[in-house]
Amino acid sequence: MKSRGMLIVFSGPAGTGKGTVCKEFLKRNPDSVLSVSATTRLPRPGETDGKEYFFVSRVEFEETIKKDGFLEYACFCDNYYGTPKKAVDEKLENGFNVILEIEVQGAMQIKEKVPEAVFVFISPPSKKVLRERIEGRGTETPEVINKRMTLAENELKQIVNYDYLIVNDEVEKAVKSFEDIVNAERLKTSRNLNFIQEVCK
Amino acid sequence: MKSRGMLIVFSGPAGTGKGTVCKEFLKRNPDSVLSVSATTRLPRPGETDGKEYFFVSRVEFEETIKKDGFLEYACFCDNYYGTPKKAVDEKLENGFNVILEIEVQGAMQIKEKVPEAVFVFISPPSKKVLRERIEGRGTETPEVINKRMTLAENELKQIVNYDYLIVNDEVEKAVKSFEDIVNAERLKTSRNLNFIQEVCK
Repeated sequence: MKSRGMLIVFSGPAGTGKGTVCKEFLKRNPDSVLSVSATTRLPRPGETDGKEYFFVSRVEFEETIKKDGFLEYACFCDNYYGTPKKAVDEKLENGFNVILEIEVQGAMQIKEKVPEAVFVFISPPSKKVLRERIEGRGTETPEVINKRMTLAENELKQIVNYDYLIVNDEVEKAVKSFEDIVNAERLKTSRNLNFIQEVCK
Repeated sequence: MKSRGMLIVFSGPAGTGKGTVCKEFLKRNPDSVLSVSATTRLPRPGETDGKEYFFVSRVEFEETIKKDGFLEYACFCDNYYGTPKKAVDEKLENGFNVILEIEVQGAMQIKEKVPEAVFVFISPPSKKVLRERIEGRGTETPEVINKRMTLAENELKQIVNYDYLIVNDEVEKAVKSFEDIVNAERLKTSRNLNFIQEVCK
């Protein structure tokens, strides 16, 4: 029997390289998968249903909310986004670790519903570096940059609610840290009660 | 400024390969050191004071108990054995992780005094394998073997009081697991409050 996978919540401000680290981690660890969110927004060119998102209607989404079918959900710019409980649960049951790349508000909803989930925050080495990275894209106005910085600052204040902190000063090191965390969590006694019961018989 | 090291408690029944795993881990991780216990028993040929043990008199040992100078101590076969607080604390202050290879009773004393310590248990893959390993030495009488098995069984019952469980079916894998645990623990948000305070400023 395959043992149940772990739910891993991965958050961090835009500009910390969260996506890059996550993608590289998944490439090296085929027993982990990324959760696909459901959304009511329309698919953009090139997006496929079930890959980037599950594209659902507003009515469907609200029905699922009523049935407590989301691990977390939120409404941004008039569109709903949420993590479908059933899809995540199926993957966990099949022994996959499921990574939720979500923002802090969603993460705190998960914490209430799935206390055994692993909460990982990825942070820039400093605020200065974060500002440089956001400015570095060179595509944003000062207003947008300042707005993003304020958003990032509010997110950073939530680090203490996470279990682990990865400081991303080097992608390779950050991926290794992510792997160490996942491997160590798998060794927690609380996740090995079946073996313990067996060996104590 | 070097950040303070972590106190790591490592236990497991005799015959699980605890010593081998620990030795190999220390060889690969020079930022971790083994704690040296104090004892009132006499040095055996080849043993050096401060290396295998700190050899002290009974009076000295009892004085240190009175001053609350041990992280844990016990009396076996009329001799005291204990972990000197001061020596451990100096190494931690210098940024070293300190590993205590101690039995479960001592570990539980540490848990009360140093709740932030990391508790790692190493177990055989099964009781059958443990018995084989103990018998395999071929040097013990059935009585001694049974006594050791009973002792081991009592120790196994304490696994749930530890944070992590390493099942030693392969030394290389067990050492890697130990490394993953130490690396992940270093990333705990609770061990990075200085950085968090700094980045949130």
